[in-house]
Parts: sequence; C-alpha cells; structure tokens
Amino acid sequence: MRENTARSSILPVAPNRGRLRPLGLDEVKITGGFWGRRRHTNATATIGHCLDRMARAGWTGNFRAAAEGRVHRDRRGREFADSEMYKLLEAMGWTRDPHDSETAAFTDLVASAQEPDGYLNTAFGRPGQQPRYSDLAWGHELYCYGHLIQAGVAQMRAGGEGELAKTARRAADHVCAAFGPHGIDGVCGHPGIETALVELARATGEERYLAQAALFLERRGHGRLADTEFGRAYFQDDMPVLEADVLRGHAVRALYLASGAVDVAVETGDEDLLAAVIRQWDATVARRTYLTGGMGSHHRDESFGDDFVLPPDRAYSETCAGVASVMLSWRLLLATGDPRYADLAERTLFNVVATSPSDDGRAFFYANTLHRRRRGAVPPADRDSPRAESSLRAPWFAVSCCPTNVARTLAALPAYLATTDDAGIQLHQYADAEITTALAGRRAVALTVRTDYPSGGGVAVRIDRAPDHPWTLSLRVPAWTRGATTWLVGPDGARRAVAPGTAEVTRVFRPGDELRLELPVTPRWIAADPRVDAVRGTLAVQRGPLVYCAESVDLPAGHEVDAVRVDPSGEPADGPDDTVVVPGRLSAPAPEHDAAWPYRTPGGPPAAVPDADRADITLVPYHSWAGRGPSTMRVWLPTAEPPSPGRES
Amino acid sequence: MRENTARSSILPVAPNRGRLRPLGLDEVKITGGFWGRRRHTNATATIGHCLDRMARAGWTGNFRAAAEGRVHRDRRGREFADSEMYKLLEAMGWTRDPHDSETAAFTDLVASAQEPDGYLNTAFGRPGQQPRYSDLAWGHELYCYGHLIQAGVAQMRAGGEGELAKTARRAADHVCAAFGPHGIDGVCGHPGIETALVELARATGEERYLAQAALFLERRGHGRLADTEFGRAYFQDDMPVLEADVLRGHAVRALYLASGAVDVAVETGDEDLLAAVIRQWDATVARRTYLTGGMGSHHRDESFGDDFVLPPDRAYSETCAGVASVMLSWRLLLATGDPRYADLAERTLFNVVATSPSDDGRAFFYANTLHRRRRGAVPPADRDSPRAESSLRAPWFAVSCCPTNVARTLAALPAYLATTDDAGIQLHQYADAEITTALAGRRAVALTVRTDYPSGGGVAVRIDRAPDHPWTLSLRVPAWTRGATTWLVGPDGARRAVAPGTAEVTRVFRPGDELRLELPVTPRWIAADPRVDAVRGTLAVQRGPLVYCAESVDLPAGHEVDAVRVDPSGEPADGPDDTVVVPGRLSAPAPEHDAAWPYRTPGGPPAAVPDADRADITLVPYHSWAGRGPSTMRVWLPTAEPPSPGRES
Repeated sequence: MRENTARSSILPVAPNRGRLRPLGLDEVKITGGFWGRRRHTNATATIGHCLDRMARAGWTGNFRAAAEGRVHRDRRGREFADSEMYKLLEAMGWTRDPHDSETAAFTDLVASAQEPDGYLNTAFGRPGQQPRYSDLAWGHELYCYGHLIQAGVAQMRAGGEGELAKTARRAADHVCAAFGPHGIDGVCGHPGIETALVELARATGEERYLAQAALFLERRGHGRLADTEFGRAYFQDDMPVLEADVLRGHAVRALYLASGAVDVAVETGDEDLLAAVIRQWDATVARRTYLTGGMGSHHRDESFGDDFVLPPDRAYSETCAGVASVMLSWRLLLATGDPRYADLAERTLFNVVATSPSDDGRAFFYANTLHRRRRGAVPPADRDSPRAESSLRAPWFAVSCCPTNVARTLAALPAYLATTDDAGIQLHQYADAEITTALAGRRAVALTVRTDYPSGGGVAVRIDRAPDHPWTLSLRVPAWTRGATTWLVGPDGARRAVAPGTAEVTRVFRPGDELRLELPVTPRWIAADPRVDAVRGTLAVQRGPLVYCAESVDLPAGHEVDAVRVDPSGEPADGPDDTVVVPGRLSAPAPEHDAAWPYRTPGGPPAAVPDADRADITLVPYHSWAGRGPSTMRVWLPTAEPPSPGRES
Repeated sequence: MRENTARSSILPVAPNRGRLRPLGLDEVKITGGFWGRRRHTNATATIGHCLDRMARAGWTGNFRAAAEGRVHRDRRGREFADSEMYKLLEAMGWTRDPHDSETAAFTDLVASAQEPDGYLNTAFGRPGQQPRYSDLAWGHELYCYGHLIQAGVAQMRAGGEGELAKTARRAADHVCAAFGPHGIDGVCGHPGIETALVELARATGEERYLAQAALFLERRGHGRLADTEFGRAYFQDDMPVLEADVLRGHAVRALYLASGAVDVAVETGDEDLLAAVIRQWDATVARRTYLTGGMGSHHRDESFGDDFVLPPDRAYSETCAGVASVMLSWRLLLATGDPRYADLAERTLFNVVATSPSDDGRAFFYANTLHRRRRGAVPPADRDSPRAESSLRAPWFAVSCCPTNVARTLAALPAYLATTDDAGIQLHQYADAEITTALAGRRAVALTVRTDYPSGGGVAVRIDRAPDHPWTLSLRVPAWTRGATTWLVGPDGARRAVAPGTAEVTRVFRPGDELRLELPVTPRWIAADPRVDAVRGTLAVQRGPLVYCAESVDLPAGHEVDAVRVDPSGEPADGPDDTVVVPGRLSAPAPEHDAAWPYRTPGGPPAAVPDADRADITLVPYHSWAGRGPSTMRVWLPTAEPPSPGRES
C-alpha cells in the first residue's frame, strides 16, 4: 500500500494508505436524481423526524436526566439509546452548517452528561444504576462511544474542533485509559468502537487511538465475552478475525467488526489481517447474501445463517446490516481498488438502504423481507413498532437503530461516489453530481455527472476544468453488464464496447469534453445457485442494479402474489414508469386450496395452460414496495406449474 | 355428547363425556415392538438420566433450598425449572409402583417446599425473591402448577391419594383462591394449568377446578398480558379462543391452550368452543404443519409462522410441540371419534416424539429440523446445550422441557392406543399390546395385538376373551392407505378391501378368533402444496407413517446430502433394514461452487445426465437420523437438475 498524502477533506473514512483516496463532501456534491431526492428528504424530513421521535420516546431526555442526577429513575429506552442521538449528530455534521444552533444545543445536552473523567453513558455508572462496564457483553457502552466518536470526527472534518469533537475526544481518552494495555482486559459485545477509534486517529494524528482499536481487535475472538444460547459467534468472540473464513453471528456486529479490521489493517500495514477480511467478504457474498445485497437471514439472533440459508419469506436483512455492508465494501474498495466492492455497495444501496425509508422519509423498514405473504396492518403512528415486522414502514421502533443509521448514511453519501489516485479520478457510483478536486500535483479538475440512472443507463461526464496534462478518468462497469451491450463513448465520439470491471480513458481532457457510459439497464431474469434451496424453481428480475418484485396492488383485484407464475421461455420487458413486465399467468387457487393436509402423492404432469390464462405480470422496483398501502409481495417468482394434485398421503 | 359412565382407570385424560372412552394403563399393556422398546428405554434409562441431570443442574436442590430458607441465593435454572421435576413425577406415576421409594422421596422434597397456603414455586415469593404473581407473563407459576397437578392426578389414578396428590390439591385450592372470580384477574403467560385443573376436576369430582379452568380460558385473549416484541399472539392473548381461526404464536403454548379448551368444552358441553378448536386444528394442519407432524417454524419466538412458511432448514418443530399436538389430537379424537386426529397423532408420534430421544434414551433433540446442512460437533456431556441446536441429540439443555415431556408421554403411551364405546372397541394406534377391558354391560373382553408395524404393515388382533353377544371391533385405516392395497382379513379368512377411515367388524367373536389388517407400507413419493415455497421442486418419501430422509453417512465418502437429486419418473423401493432406495444421482459440485456471486442470468436447459451418473440413494427413517455421528440430512430431495449456469448477474 501507498501512503496517502495528508489532506483535510470532509470524509467519513479517510485512510492514510490504500489504493484509492476518497473524495469528501467538499469535493463531491450530489445535485439531483435518485439519490439527490433521497438526500433532500433525509435532510429536510428524516433527521427532524428522528429528533422528534427521540424526544417523544424520552431518549433525548436521558442526557438531561443524567446531568441532573435523576437518570437512575427517569431513563427511557434500551441500553443503546444514547447511540441514536450520536448517529443523528453525525448526520447533522455532514449536512448542516457547523454552527447550526440545533446541533449546538444537542451537543451541549450530550456534553452535559459527560462525567469528569470522560465517561459518558446514561444507562450505567451513576448511583442507582449498574456499575460502569459491569455488562460488557450486552451493555453497549463502547458501542455508544463509537457513534459518539464518529459524530465528533464528522464535526472536526466539517467545521473544526467544536464542543462535540471535544466531548468525543474526552470519551476516547477515557476509553484508552480504561481499556488500554493495563486497563480492563475486555471488549464490547457490539463492535463499532474499532472503526471510530481509527477514524479519530486519522483525524487527529494521535496514534494511541489506533493502538487501542488494534488492541480491541486482538482481544476479540478468545471467549472474553459470556457464552450465550446463540454461541459466542453472535459476538464474533468465537475465533480471532485473522482465523475466520466467513462472516457469522449477528450481522451488524460482524460487519462493523470487519470494517474496523480493515481500518486497522490499512493503518498498520497488516496485509494478513486485510487478506482475512477479504476472504471472509468473498465467502459471505458468495454464500450468505440475498439478491438485494441484504445480509443476515435469522430473525432469532439477527445473524447470518449457514451457507445458502437465504429464505425470502424469513429474510431478516436488517437495514443496519445493509449500512454496515456498504461501510465494509467501501473500505475494501479504498484499500484494493477492486470494483467488485463498489458493485456490492451499489446493489446494497439501491435495494436495502434505499428500501428502508418511505418516500416522505418519516417511516422505515428495519427488516427487509423478500416475500411478504399476507397484507399487514398499518403501523401505529403513536407508538413503537416491533422491529421484525415487515408489513409497512413504521415511524419508530423500540429498537430504532435503523432510521438514524439511514440518516447518517444518506447524509455522507456523496463521499462514497468517487476517488482519486495518482493517475486520475475514479467514478464508482452514478448520480447527478459535481466533482471538484485536485489531482496529484495539485492540478485542479472539475467534472459534472448527469444521469437518470438507474431508471436509464446513460451516464454523461462532462469535464469542466482540467489540467493540460494527460490523466485517467475511470468508470466502474457493473458486473451485471455484458461486453456487447455496454459502451463507452469518448470525447471524440468514438464508441467502444467495455467489459465489466473498469473502463478507463487516459488523455488530455479539455473543458467541455464529455464521456458517455451506456449501461444496458434492460430487465433480465435471475436464477439462484441450486444450493439456495428456498428459491428452487423460481426466477427473479433485475433491471440495472435494481431488484424487482411483484406486488399485489399491481395484480387484478382478488389476487395475491403467490398466484404469480412466470414463463421463463419469454423475456422480461420494460413497462411504463420504471416497471417491468414479465410473461406468465395468474394461477387459480390450486385444488389443494382446501385440502386437509398439504402433502400428497404427486399426480400427473402439470395441466397445460390455456392461452387465455396467460397474462403479463407487472413488477416494480423492490425499493418502492409497500408504498401504496398493505400488500403482498415477492421477489422470487415460481416458473413451473405445480404437478396435478394427487391424493392425500 | 354422551355422558361417560363413571370409571376409575389409570388415564392421563378421562373426559366425562365424548364420543369415545379411553382405555387406561391398567387396560392396555404395550408388550414389545417399536414403542415397547422405547418405553423400556424410557423407564430404565431416560427417567433416571433426567433425575440425574436435574440434580447436577441444581434444579432438584431448589426445592431443598426453598424448604431451608436459602433459595433466594441458591436457586438454579430458569423460572420454570420446577416443572421438570413435576413432569418426571408424572412419568414415574405412570410407570412405577405407587409405593416406589424414589418417587416418595422426590414427592417429600417437593412437598417440603410448599407454603402453608398451598403456594409452591421456588423462583418467587420468598424473602429476597420477586413477589408471587408479579410477572404473570413470564414467571410460569401457574404453568408449573399445571404439571404438578398432572403429576398428582397420575398418582391418584395409579395408586390413590398419596402425598403428591395432596400437594397438588393444596396447590389447586390455592390457585382457585388466588385467581378465582374475586381474586387476581390474570392468566399465565404459558398455558397448561387449564388441562390440569380439568383433569383434577375429573379425578376428584370437584366442579370448582373445572370452573377455574373455564375462567382462565375466558380471561385469555383480551390483552391482560403485556405486549411483547412478538405481539400478544405469542401468549394467545391477542383474541379469545372462540374467535381464532388458526393456531398462532408460541406453538407449545398454543397447543396446550387448545387442549385445555377441548377439556373445558367437553366437560361443560360447550359445542361452540369445541367447534372453534376444531376449526383451528383444521387450518393449522392444512397450512402450518411439517410433513413430520412437527409444528412451529420460527426459531425466534418458537412460534407458528404464517401459512405455508415451513422451511425445512429452519424448522423449529420443537419436541414439546409434538407432545402437545398429540395431547390435542387425542382430546379431539375422544370428543369426536374422527380418525383424522389419530392419523396426525400417529404421524407426530413416529416422526417427532420418537425422533427426539437417542437409542439409549440419554440424549434428545429439542428442535427437529428437516434439513441439516453441515455436520455439527458432538454436544458436550458435561454441560447444557443450546436448545435450538440440531446437530446431534444432547444430554441436557439450559431449557430442558423436552426430555421430561418425552418421558411422561412415553410413560403414558398405552393410554393413547385404544378406546371403547357402547358398540365395542376401537384401535387407533398399532403396537404389540394386550388389551383387557369391559364392554358396555360389564362384559369382559381381552385382545392381543401383534404387529411389526411400522416396519411391516400387518396387524393381527387375536380375541382372547369375549362375550357371547355381537360387538364391534374398529380399526383405524390410515389416511395414507388406498383402497385397492389395504385389506381386512376377518376371523373367517374373508379378505375385504378397506378405505382410509375406519374398518369395522361386528359379530360374536370367539376366543381364538383373529382379524388381520394389511396396510401397504410400501414407500411412496410425497409432494407439497405449491404454496410451501421452501420445498418447491423437491419430493419427500414416506413409508407407512414414517417420513424418510437422506443422511450423509449413507452416501459415498465425500458427498453431503445437498448433492442428492432424485428421479421422480422412478419409484422408491424397499431396501434392507427398513431403508428405502430411490432412483437418482449425486450431482457433482455445481460449476457455481466457487462463483463469487450466487445469482446469475440462467443459461440453457439442464445438461442430460449420463447413465453412468445415475445412482440409487438410500434413505433411512427420519426418526433414526443423527444416530451414527455427525452428518448432514435432508427430508425434501430436489428432483430437477439445475439449469446450466449462466453468467454472473
């Protein structure tokens, strides 16, 4: 790896080394389109909605109660409720003026609850509460510091060393003192502190924060945490990061930990550690990831399942795991430059992160099922919803980690679009954007990206400013494209087919030059590895990076999605308004409908389907489902007619 | 319904009304065969093993600690640990001499912990503990009484009113006082008290126990219990029993409650309540039951899933839910005489209850998965196992309800074989047995049943003693038989085809007369309703009532069960030693094996399978799986070759 030159951009992740250098929020602006609309809603609705719900739930008041000495009787919410405030402060740090008065007020509130030695948690340590660090497995104290520190780093990078940054540093100093080589020999049940400490080291240049993160990583995997009914794998405390072959246990915990491991590996030059995480990412993506990019198939422990256990109707696919997967992929992309990490990030952003919030930004999915079998009720506006429910998006949850995690991710999203290296600029994600940065040697460059992606597949990149030396513009060509359908049109109008991976143009660019990438966002069938037993005999549809689904509101009245049969001998086609139309039929309720017992000796082959029964089935982007009231929905659509019913058996 | 004549047999369930009258342990002896071997192991190994593990876990000592006033600091185990002792005392009540000294010793121990007002629970109510009934939702106090009362009833019926019966009556009197119409207006989070109080009313003739059970049923379903993240359906407190259309929530809770509802309905003549439970049973069996009879598909809350959510690899199918399902089906059979309840009981006994214990009776499955994807580790002998693990049977669990539930069920099993009515005797389950009872008018009758069922399909019933009047012998003909293959051979040697349901012979039987039922236990393919998405494109095999499975130990070295493909154009055939052989092949690892991403645009049709690749696949009874060391296993076997792999997409 190569040292990155010192720089002070507004970045969530700023490694000192690695293949690629990220561009910050001061260098990349998203100006519209798919993500522009969502970022606008995030800034104008979601953050305020979350602050409001935090206040109503009493979680904001916990800080005040702590400052006033009455938190032992007045505290509300789960043990990790403090972290939601920190995630919102991080989101505000990326999106608001550094002198925003609301940010300042909440910062003061948080700071008022900090104890003189830097300890800060409203659930532990005061008279009448459990002692500090008396429950490392479930207490989430270090996890909460992680989000506090990330919020502090956001403030440092966006506006300098304000009160939040100081609070975060005091907390980090306390952690180093309490958990250093001569302190408590423990780790937190929920990782998160590791990435935060590395980022603070990067932001401050203080190596001891990095050392503390490395120490937490070394300690984990040796059974320091209590065994549980889920096993120590739940906490990733079953084996050291260096030794594991696949991500396992609680999905968000696993992905946060892996992100921290990449951060430590990059900063310390630990190639073995980086290779271990890459190996785990490879196996996890090959065998434990939903088509949407979603991770974690168990409801019980919010964990990864065994290889290929990916049931659509019991998909957990927590929104926070999607956020965490993007965090991990981005770090691996920066470290290695390999576009497959950007491929997975794109898939996860469009199909998990974008699926969670409602159009108005005031309701969210916590779990992201791929098959909804019955129409559910409208979640109550006035109280918390169960997190695992997946009928309609809910305004708030008793465990409400996902809304604030979406908020901070959308707030920082421009920083995940583009990078530089000594050769030039790399575009990884496509959105309407303006990019202004300096190439090696401080040569200024400015680009404008215009695209209706993912609705359309054209991406135009106009050069607004460029040095009069040759440099390279690199464009990711998604893995789902194919050579004969994917084109790069150069400034000279020359059109060349490009293959999945990276398309590069190296030349002396002139202001006004325009490149155009043409991606084949035509809909296509998708089949699963036969080891994904739960979707045998079905197909899904993708269009560009978007996964599609059938939703009952698009079927004739009285039909639910389980009646859909698709005909794989035909091809999916574009419909109006970003819909896709697939050939198939709506099966009548099977004769088994009222059978007393659902298992039978099979009868003859399927009855032929009369032409009159054939129907076009309209599919919609998965991220948009459940936006039109209660519905049933499925991503994986059966192809075969069932065999003729036999007799009860 | 018709009043049953007063009688005092050794019975777990003795309704005063109903279509059929059960025969007790003093009337039916199991003398050998499949269930005889298991009952012998249960009596000679399992009960002692459980007592030993109870002692080692400290759960026995809880009673001593309570009597000695130190339970607040010395108590071990979960809040419901007392109930395991009661279940064992029930099992001992059915199998041992009423004056057995070990039973007496444990009875004294239990009684010593009872408080003067009848309250008895080692987890609540003493100084330093939570107050009595302060946590009805999760405290399990009434649930524990339920098992105590059942044990007391077993003793009353087997040997008269001893100390255990007195302890149980004191507890029941306390419950009536504490939770009566003017007492606490609450219900227990875990049903179980309802069946027990009705049985105590039946055993004692005291109507107030029945009234208390009816009151608990009336109270439930109106939100008296706290809401949880699983919803109130978890406790069946979401709607009254009378209104529900299907069983839902925690499976054991739901089945215990439904059993109690049948008991109350039968005793009070409440036809609406009985009809409600029948409606719920119908829907649950048609849409929420595994091929094995297993119920409950969610690991998270041990609950029923939505209709047709029956994933084999995430099947929970708790052993206790199997026990509870047999309890419910038996009650409905007695009430209605409908043989379909005996059909489900048979399926559940052979494929869930018989699956749980190991051959030596000292290890158990808590969950009964239908697909095991990786070979697991050998459970530790010296500590408790997680209940949801399903690699190999484990000696004990932190939540160890299943071993003791298996013990009491096998102990009482003869009482589930046969019934009488005014017309004669009905045989519902087939096992080597001797039956001696009196028909209406006290006419003595004795039968001997000889069978190698379910290995073979012949059941011989010899009349050893009979009155010289005509009476009817009824034999259940399982739903999986078919007319042209199923025969009843009369005492005169006449052979007639019989259809699923009930075959009857009415005549004046003479001692030495023999009837023979010939059931077609040839193996057969089973297909699932297409709405069971998780098994689309697969077949299972049943032989008689037994579900079969592929297990890796029967495959050539190096193969796991996921390589099995079966050929539905062929037929399964008998193999040696109760195995079944099915035509198929072992697929080579698919080319996707090392794909970076498991979803692809499909390629061409499946490659033709060379004859050389075809192989016979050996299947074994599901109940026997995991008896030969760690293995992979699956019940549902894919039929189709996967399509040719396409390109990454």
